[in-house]
Amino acid sequence: MADAKVYRASTTAPVNIAVVKYWGKRDAKLNLPTNSSLSVTLSQADLRTLTTASCSSTFTQGDSLTLNGESSDVSGARTQACFRELRARRAALEAADSSLPKLSTMPLKIVSENNFPTAAGLASSAAGFAALVQAIANLYELPDSPSQLSLIARQGSGSACRSLFGGYVAWRAGDKQDGSDSMADLVAPASHWPNMRALILVVSAAKKGVSSTAGMQQTVATSGLFQQRIGTVVAANMAAMEKAVKQKDFATFAEVTMRESNSFHACCADTYPPIFYMNDVSKAAIRAVEAINAQAGKTVAAYTFDAGPNCVVYYLEEDASAVLGAFSTVLAGVSGWNQASAGSAPSIKLDEGIAGILKDGVSRVIMTGVGEGPMKTDEYLVAEDGQPIAR
Amino acid sequence: MADAKVYRASTTAPVNIAVVKYWGKRDAKLNLPTNSSLSVTLSQADLRTLTTASCSSTFTQGDSLTLNGESSDVSGARTQACFRELRARRAALEAADSSLPKLSTMPLKIVSENNFPTAAGLASSAAGFAALVQAIANLYELPDSPSQLSLIARQGSGSACRSLFGGYVAWRAGDKQDGSDSMADLVAPASHWPNMRALILVVSAAKKGVSSTAGMQQTVATSGLFQQRIGTVVAANMAAMEKAVKQKDFATFAEVTMRESNSFHACCADTYPPIFYMNDVSKAAIRAVEAINAQAGKTVAAYTFDAGPNCVVYYLEEDASAVLGAFSTVLAGVSGWNQASAGSAPSIKLDEGIAGILKDGVSRVIMTGVGEGPMKTDEYLVAEDGQPIAR
Repeated sequence: MADAKVYRASTTAPVNIAVVKYWGKRDAKLNLPTNSSLSVTLSQADLRTLTTASCSSTFTQGDSLTLNGESSDVSGARTQACFRELRARRAALEAADSSLPKLSTMPLKIVSENNFPTAAGLASSAAGFAALVQAIANLYELPDSPSQLSLIARQGSGSACRSLFGGYVAWRAGDKQDGSDSMADLVAPASHWPNMRALILVVSAAKKGVSSTAGMQQTVATSGLFQQRIGTVVAANMAAMEKAVKQKDFATFAEVTMRESNSFHACCADTYPPIFYMNDVSKAAIRAVEAINAQAGKTVAAYTFDAGPNCVVYYLEEDASAVLGAFSTVLAGVSGWNQASAGSAPSIKLDEGIAGILKDGVSRVIMTGVGEGPMKTDEYLVAEDGQPIAR
Repeated sequence: MADAKVYRASTTAPVNIAVVKYWGKRDAKLNLPTNSSLSVTLSQADLRTLTTASCSSTFTQGDSLTLNGESSDVSGARTQACFRELRARRAALEAADSSLPKLSTMPLKIVSENNFPTAAGLASSAAGFAALVQAIANLYELPDSPSQLSLIARQGSGSACRSLFGGYVAWRAGDKQDGSDSMADLVAPASHWPNMRALILVVSAAKKGVSSTAGMQQTVATSGLFQQRIGTVVAANMAAMEKAVKQKDFATFAEVTMRESNSFHACCADTYPPIFYMNDVSKAAIRAVEAINAQAGKTVAAYTFDAGPNCVVYYLEEDASAVLGAFSTVLAGVSGWNQASAGSAPSIKLDEGIAGILKDGVSRVIMTGVGEGPMKTDEYLVAEDGQPIAR
């Protein structure tokens, strides 16, 4: 008798923003990085991917993936690698226990949605691949730990491996050729340093820049400074950052975060031809953070930029008034501020030049903070009958 | 009987634009660099400083310096170092030949003028100190070679040592503690590769950035990537550049020029806090040069940026139509184009985004080319009676 049941499992997964940056692959196929990295997982209340993985022998179209309502190609090597690895693990369980339904042989139907606009230009592939891997792992009832799953998610998108944990997460580069030691681990849970906050300044870019996959390989191939970064700079920053997180030392956390962002973008600028992700608005955000720290008389804010012009400002809850006050005065007209920020009195004032550039260039803000890793949910994007659920 | 005569000598001196960049001092007092550099001397028909050095026992106000009609402080260590070194050499001549007038004991009156607007933001200190040193050397009738004089000019402004030669000029970093081997020499005269041209896109900056003297020391002190630049990158670029100049190999000259500019600005971006000299207009100029080379099907243009947003585009006379055509179509409204460029048919078209940014951000252009070193002239800025000449 054929099994016509639709099996389902759902998870949410978070975005993470690196404070020690991943830039450069030593193996492009396996997504093995040239260096370790470290990130802060952001709260899923503000930024998360919700993914339902389902499978059924009645799915006759083969594996499929729907992202934000649009059908997405699953034939790419990265998605295929994730499917293959997860199926192999399920198949091993099935081989060991013949009573288990043969989910590994059924077509997968994956439906995924972000709770934030794609237009925001936030790297969603980390949350996306983390959610995809976790949802299928839930569906398959795999016993694998987050670190073990991170080995799979890494093959989908390098930084995705860090989104399998909440809090403060390291991705160890590893040195094995097969990548079996290139995985994420928990440096500290969100509860260890729960008052870490992030303000994202969404900067409208005239044009999408070089993709990070293409860009990082150009850097590896052409930058004369990059070897120094991966050989010396990052190791020191990883050590300093882990210690800062463990000791909840914001001043060091902030300095390393800013130096790391600078170092990464310097290597982009040293690429031939040069890659520029930051624009004049991004640079005004840097000057604003410097001005806030100078006027506060201590380090209360840190900027970091990924492969785009958006600025992520890390700060502590207790300094919210200083940090948010400075930005919300200038950016009162954009969406994303909540009541807490609107009420704060701005004791810190940005100079008019910086304020003008930010006002013209920042299209919205996102207020968030450190958060948890993937969470199983009974919210489904595929109905019991296997049909996608319209939302 | 007192000697009441006013002794005078005049010289012009050129601007130079480095293709292997000077950035970083290993000795701030002696202006000893962390690395060798190489520059192209630009034609004095377009950019030059004219300086008259005069001395007389009747000058009772002590040493004085007038720059572009304004009195300038001579008490700074750099100017004092130049005066001291030149006087010492003159004093040695006077000691050896008692018939010589005792110019070394007389107050100096130096008057200097640039033939280009200071507002253009072109580094004029190189031409200025080269002219000052050469004018006094002429006044004192010193037998010193340009390389020997470059030792003195270097103490006024590092890059000034390269403006004592025309053509293609290297500044050897040297390794002696007293700086006695840190001097300029001629890689090739202008006549060796006379068809080298330069188009300067003058970009209006909202605000003057960090001074290069302060900036380079911040880089030395804080950049984690800088050691790689001075230890490895520059040596390779110096060797490649000297060979390219000697072989008149424009493709290599251009690639090394662009990579060097990228490397220098990358180290600025890696400084803590980061230094940004290029803005979005500068980056549009880079994209324009890349588009020109792509559409030409070979390397016909090279960009380079000093400590400011202005773009210097090197190209060869035979490619003027392609390079100037592309820029002059977009920048038809700004001053600085000559007839040769206006007549060229634009076969290369820049995309609208780049064109729009350049049109908004480039305030003028300067068309020039490789040129000669300092030239003695009988044009004086101090009259025979010792009075400054109004012009």
